[in-house]
Amino acid sequence: MTGYNRVALIGLGLIASSMAHAMRAHGLAGEIVGHAKSPETRATAVEIGLCDRVCETAAEAVRGADLVVLCVPVGAMGAIAAEIAPHLAVGATITDVGSVKQAVVEAVAPHLPPHVNFIPGHPLAGTEHSGPRSGFASLFVNRWWLLTPLEGNDPAAVQRLRDFLTGLGANVDEMDVQRHDLVLAVVSHTPHLIAYTMVGVADHLRRVTQDEVIKYSASGFRDFTRIAASDPTMWRDVFLTNKEATLDILGRFTEELFMLQRAIRMEDGAFLHDYFTRTRAIRRGIIEAGQDTAAPDFGRGVPPSDKA
Amino acid sequence: MTGYNRVALIGLGLIASSMAHAMRAHGLAGEIVGHAKSPETRATAVEIGLCDRVCETAAEAVRGADLVVLCVPVGAMGAIAAEIAPHLAVGATITDVGSVKQAVVEAVAPHLPPHVNFIPGHPLAGTEHSGPRSGFASLFVNRWWLLTPLEGNDPAAVQRLRDFLTGLGANVDEMDVQRHDLVLAVVSHTPHLIAYTMVGVADHLRRVTQDEVIKYSASGFRDFTRIAASDPTMWRDVFLTNKEATLDILGRFTEELFMLQRAIRMEDGAFLHDYFTRTRAIRRGIIEAGQDTAAPDFGRGVPPSDKA
Ligand SMILES: NC(=O)c1ccc[n+]([C@@H]2O[C@H](COP(=O)([O-])OP(=O)(O)OC[C@H]3O[C@@H](n4cnc5c(N)ncnc54)[C@H](OP(=O)(O)O)[C@@H]3O)[C@@H](O)[C@H]2O)c1
Ligand SMILES: NC(=O)c1ccc[n+]([C@@H]2O[C@H](COP(=O)([O-])OP(=O)(O)OC[C@H]3O[C@@H](n4cnc5c(N)ncnc54)[C@H](OP(=O)(O)O)[C@@H]3O)[C@@H](O)[C@H]2O)c1
Repeated sequence: MTGYNRVALIGLGLIASSMAHAMRAHGLAGEIVGHAKSPETRATAVEIGLCDRVCETAAEAVRGADLVVLCVPVGAMGAIAAEIAPHLAVGATITDVGSVKQAVVEAVAPHLPPHVNFIPGHPLAGTEHSGPRSGFASLFVNRWWLLTPLEGNDPAAVQRLRDFLTGLGANVDEMDVQRHDLVLAVVSHTPHLIAYTMVGVADHLRRVTQDEVIKYSASGFRDFTRIAASDPTMWRDVFLTNKEATLDILGRFTEELFMLQRAIRMEDGAFLHDYFTRTRAIRRGIIEAGQDTAAPDFGRGVPPSDKA
Repeated sequence: MTGYNRVALIGLGLIASSMAHAMRAHGLAGEIVGHAKSPETRATAVEIGLCDRVCETAAEAVRGADLVVLCVPVGAMGAIAAEIAPHLAVGATITDVGSVKQAVVEAVAPHLPPHVNFIPGHPLAGTEHSGPRSGFASLFVNRWWLLTPLEGNDPAAVQRLRDFLTGLGANVDEMDVQRHDLVLAVVSHTPHLIAYTMVGVADHLRRVTQDEVIKYSASGFRDFTRIAASDPTMWRDVFLTNKEATLDILGRFTEELFMLQRAIRMEDGAFLHDYFTRTRAIRRGIIEAGQDTAAPDFGRGVPPSDKA
């Protein structure tokens, strides 16, 4: 059988609610039990029928579950692990969806009993929206879901989790914990920080430029604002917990930026042209790897039928 | 009548070919005449029937045209103005679509005879694709087209051009030349440079991370690579010709980045959370201004019908 008898979702935001929809759509859970911190989120979950059962405490939610998924901000994982540990079923699989892995492993693993399998994970899928109403079943389709299995994990438990995630539509890959945090600092964490920074600069300039920055945001800046609209708590936790790798990549970024800045100041057109030609190649690689589309109006929000 | 009897497009890339499709779709030109530098592009234009007539020289193309649109990279505008000047019809309107305005005005205006109206312009619409096959009729729909009219422009000529651009689907606005270059440095030029830089960093790291950067590009980085896939010649010219404003905004960006970098190093979570909360507001402004959509899977390339 692919799937679990009882899945407990701790945290009921974008990732958890998308998982709930996808589990339902593909019949991957006998019962879905959920818990979130605030009464408001729990009430919303009940109202929209997100789970079969919503519990007031995480401890209650995990009871009898053969899969527990921690879907809370990275900084909240440790306390939850401590709370649920005594209530976990023998043989249960515990995973998480946190965007950073080393810090989660350090915060969670020490609390868990030896009779469970903790298999850390991270879906490379998301939007800038959050909360229990923001999920949708296809969020994970054709997206990577990285697992960073730990020493001592039962291979059968890992395989079962892989099958489950594949059932949600994801492509599953395994990776070393440290490597995960470095690669993600490059492809996600540093780009997010840069987008936040650029939007912050524009915000300061709003007085100078009145609302022209918002009015004329199309092309370039608009994409940054989407990235910079992501959940503040989640991203604060990401930067605090993946500090070393983010600072490392940021240092390289600044060096590189100074080089391009100097080329502009010196009017070194050949250098700029070469540089911009090289960056094009990496884009082609992404399209070939199936991680994006080359459609000419991609991102413009105009339905394809409008095109000439 | 809205439109012109004969429109000459100089340069036949993304912007010109989109204009040609849109003019046809809305009956805005009696005849469309085109010219591009290379025989290859001219041959392609003939092959796909982009214009009614393709000429070997710009001088030939502008003859008898009541509207001439310069659709070449910013650095090429001056030489073309010099070439076409003696051949322009009395009373013709000349406009351009360059992403920078001060430098274009300085390069173009001195060459033109007093019996024409040079009304500089800039459509805030584009994709990362280029060339005569990349255009589509809806590119300008609901996008801004900024005009920076010059002293001495005939108001009737400006109004006629506005009506024509509105006919292409654009929202037309007028702006001062210097202000245009500053606002665009914020909303477009600096974000592009930053995206190029981040993709350049990732490219260096490819040896370290093998192809993981490409493989796991979803979320964050992927958007940067799309921006950084834009035409190298066009963007070289933008940075060389909008040098001062770009360097000014880059300086502010670097200051701001150092502040956030320090907050990460000092683990100042409250500062980061506040900062990320403020940047969310600017996003809301853009969605309210109708310049983007809040659809939850926006940018993921999954058709809406896939959603649960
Ligand atoms: N969003 C993305 O793009 C993305 C992508 C990949 C991975 N992730 C990771 O997925 C995790 C969740 O992200 P998300 O986007 O789903 O977040 P979200 O929409 O903001 O939801 C977070 C959920 O966690 C709950 N929560 C927070 N602290 C809690 C606590 N101490 N006890 C119980 N519940 C708590 C919240 O409850 P209340 O609503 O009651 O506050 C909320 O239901 C994060 O670790 C993030 O790094 C996110
Ligand atoms: N792409 C955007 O996102 C965007 C948005 C707004 C404004 N713009 C501005 O629009 C202008 C054109 O951009 P685009 O994206 O349409 O460029 P593109 O697709 O790269 O096309 C440029 C065209 O200009 C022609 N050209 C270059 N030098 C020439 C010369 N000396 N004489 C005659 N033709 C010449 C090229 O001919 P060959 O093919 O023969 O080389 C090509 O047909 C630029 O000034 C750019 O700043 C672009």
